[in-house]
Amino acid sequence: MAVNFTVFEDFAVVKGVRIGVAQSAVRYKDRDDMVVFELAEGTEVAGVFTTNAFCAAPVHICRRNLEKASPRYLLINTGNANAGTGPKGFKNAELSCAMLAKATGVTAEQVLPFSTGVIGEPLNMEAFERGIPAALDNLSESNWARAGRGIMTTDTLPKGYSKQVEIDGKTVTITGLSKGAGMIMPNMATMLGFIATDASIPASVMQGWARKLADKSFNRITIDGDTSTNDSCVLMATGQSGVTITDGTSEAAIIFAALEEVFQVLAQAIVRDGEGATKFVTIDVESAASQKEALDVGYTVAHSPLVKTALYASDANWGRILAAVGRSGVQNFDLDKVQIYLDDVQIVEDGGRCDSYTEEKGAAVLAQSEFTIRIQLGRGDINERLWTCDLSHDYVSINADYRS
Amino acid sequence: MAVNFTVFEDFAVVKGVRIGVAQSAVRYKDRDDMVVFELAEGTEVAGVFTTNAFCAAPVHICRRNLEKASPRYLLINTGNANAGTGPKGFKNAELSCAMLAKATGVTAEQVLPFSTGVIGEPLNMEAFERGIPAALDNLSESNWARAGRGIMTTDTLPKGYSKQVEIDGKTVTITGLSKGAGMIMPNMATMLGFIATDASIPASVMQGWARKLADKSFNRITIDGDTSTNDSCVLMATGQSGVTITDGTSEAAIIFAALEEVFQVLAQAIVRDGEGATKFVTIDVESAASQKEALDVGYTVAHSPLVKTALYASDANWGRILAAVGRSGVQNFDLDKVQIYLDDVQIVEDGGRCDSYTEEKGAAVLAQSEFTIRIQLGRGDINERLWTCDLSHDYVSINADYRS
Repeated sequence: MAVNFTVFEDFAVVKGVRIGVAQSAVRYKDRDDMVVFELAEGTEVAGVFTTNAFCAAPVHICRRNLEKASPRYLLINTGNANAGTGPKGFKNAELSCAMLAKATGVTAEQVLPFSTGVIGEPLNMEAFERGIPAALDNLSESNWARAGRGIMTTDTLPKGYSKQVEIDGKTVTITGLSKGAGMIMPNMATMLGFIATDASIPASVMQGWARKLADKSFNRITIDGDTSTNDSCVLMATGQSGVTITDGTSEAAIIFAALEEVFQVLAQAIVRDGEGATKFVTIDVESAASQKEALDVGYTVAHSPLVKTALYASDANWGRILAAVGRSGVQNFDLDKVQIYLDDVQIVEDGGRCDSYTEEKGAAVLAQSEFTIRIQLGRGDINERLWTCDLSHDYVSINADYRS
Repeated sequence: MAVNFTVFEDFAVVKGVRIGVAQSAVRYKDRDDMVVFELAEGTEVAGVFTTNAFCAAPVHICRRNLEKASPRYLLINTGNANAGTGPKGFKNAELSCAMLAKATGVTAEQVLPFSTGVIGEPLNMEAFERGIPAALDNLSESNWARAGRGIMTTDTLPKGYSKQVEIDGKTVTITGLSKGAGMIMPNMATMLGFIATDASIPASVMQGWARKLADKSFNRITIDGDTSTNDSCVLMATGQSGVTITDGTSEAAIIFAALEEVFQVLAQAIVRDGEGATKFVTIDVESAASQKEALDVGYTVAHSPLVKTALYASDANWGRILAAVGRSGVQNFDLDKVQIYLDDVQIVEDGGRCDSYTEEKGAAVLAQSEFTIRIQLGRGDINERLWTCDLSHDYVSINADYRS
């Protein structure tokens, strides 16, 4: 069902990152469900987390631990989100960190916990007693593919990508994993992204880059408009390649562009594997007066059930797109300046139906599995791009039948 | 498919209102599709209209004409929304008013036009040449039921209601019609509401009442979160009952309460007949710090595809409700104060899963076709109530297959 999705197999090792994977039976048996990342000493780590006020216990602890110490381990479980679990959930997440810290000789603050799965059920701590040693037993630089499967929930396919660039004759590797099939699945919650590079990125730059990269990728995708309680994206830089980034240099720009590619491939993979998705849709909002209004317009179109069902039906229903633009809350909107295109086919000209538009032209674009909706507001020079999918019968089936 | 919906048959006549209905073939043949309301001289009229920036030509003209003159006629067509039709759409709407004005000897500004149906196609003016005289030919006080059918688009059932109250031994009648099955259907756009009373309501009170009544009814329903380009709600007071309202009196309170009942029944009927609806859901947001945050929370829950699919599945998925509350944008949210109930079953207590809650209790509530989700924020004393429905396979079918 995933849209133009190729499972990535050719993972490149990131020096300084080893990964362990185990079957801990947090919730399901006979599947990998616990993943440990081990980071070489000196690795810089930055995270971007959900804005949901009800963020899960592990998200709280990630944020806190990142302020307190340099992370040496990530501990990820699938099957249980440890969200909506109150003080006990908080203690359980801390306990899981302490267990991994004790087994490896680091402090509990040097462990970042990530959970994804059912909301509101207590974490099965016996699973951590089983899973942590088992994962540590098979730590390896080559476990990326297996880890990609080990963090899946409702994902139908594992999501990963590697990119290498040459800097001064040295190879810099970037490899990442993501998971998520709806923007939120509070039963099997969460979008997660883990991206590691063996470049050395200064601590002063890391957080800014992580935010910028997320804003060009994971923060620009939407399946159903819901924001998970557990969404987390982590950038890790081990520095083991011998290449050190200095902000503002051309080398920094090359690495940033490579990171951006990895972030975008991983984020787009979530949309391609979106629950019930049959279409992968890019939404470009151009000539907005501000980033906020560009995103308001883009998300209003991307979230409109009427637009999404029309996309599913390959129905170039320009009226639904226009109506969504109109209700997006843009102030003092001059409709006469609005142009809307489906790929290169103009459907709205100066706020009305484009004279040259025919349903046949529109239908031809929407018959494709991938296309772009381009909306020009004619108000300024701000552009934003985001990615979404359609709303199909399968989306309803997946989410209505999910827990049964 | 409609949820607990009884077609109202027992319409009470509103003195001073006559209605004509005709088959004009604006778009479809062999069905009533044009309705004319004739209002007695001296009738006070107030309207509440869509906030969509791309509002349709007839909405512009309604607003303008209401400022210019005292309306004597409403002219309603179904099958074509006359939206996204540019300057020509504007001229066509004015032309339709002029045609009715000429046939009845009033000015064009005394006619309010309403259109609902396909967006972006030119209005078929021949249909008005046929329909206006035909509708005028059968003007009658008793045409409410037929008019209710004549304004339908994707509605599966006609929507109407009457209420009578006694004031000083005199009977005041309130009768209304509504249409709409999605909050927006840019193909067959629009929620419309027409409510008439034979009470005399002072002009100074009318607009305030229309706004307040809409804010307790049509502005508190949502099916899919989309706001139509054509949404319009009109309150008409003919004064022919001999009862005159003075603002602030107990008689005014009685009439207002009766109007509120009619507005709410008509608004709720739209949700009950919502596209694909199988559940009718009341959302109460209590103890908010402001009306805005109460509505933000309510609508975020009501619009969440994950909540709506869970309701469809009769799955008391409290995690999805909690996550929607969490992402609704409330500032400085103290989660520990949040309580959530399904009818009388508490599912969230102090921000976490309620200890006494069981899935069986939740499932028993959701097995009903009607229930209430009550969310207490513990932040202030503002309460808001709105109504919505679930998201079913049929919603996708209706909206994906619609134009074919």
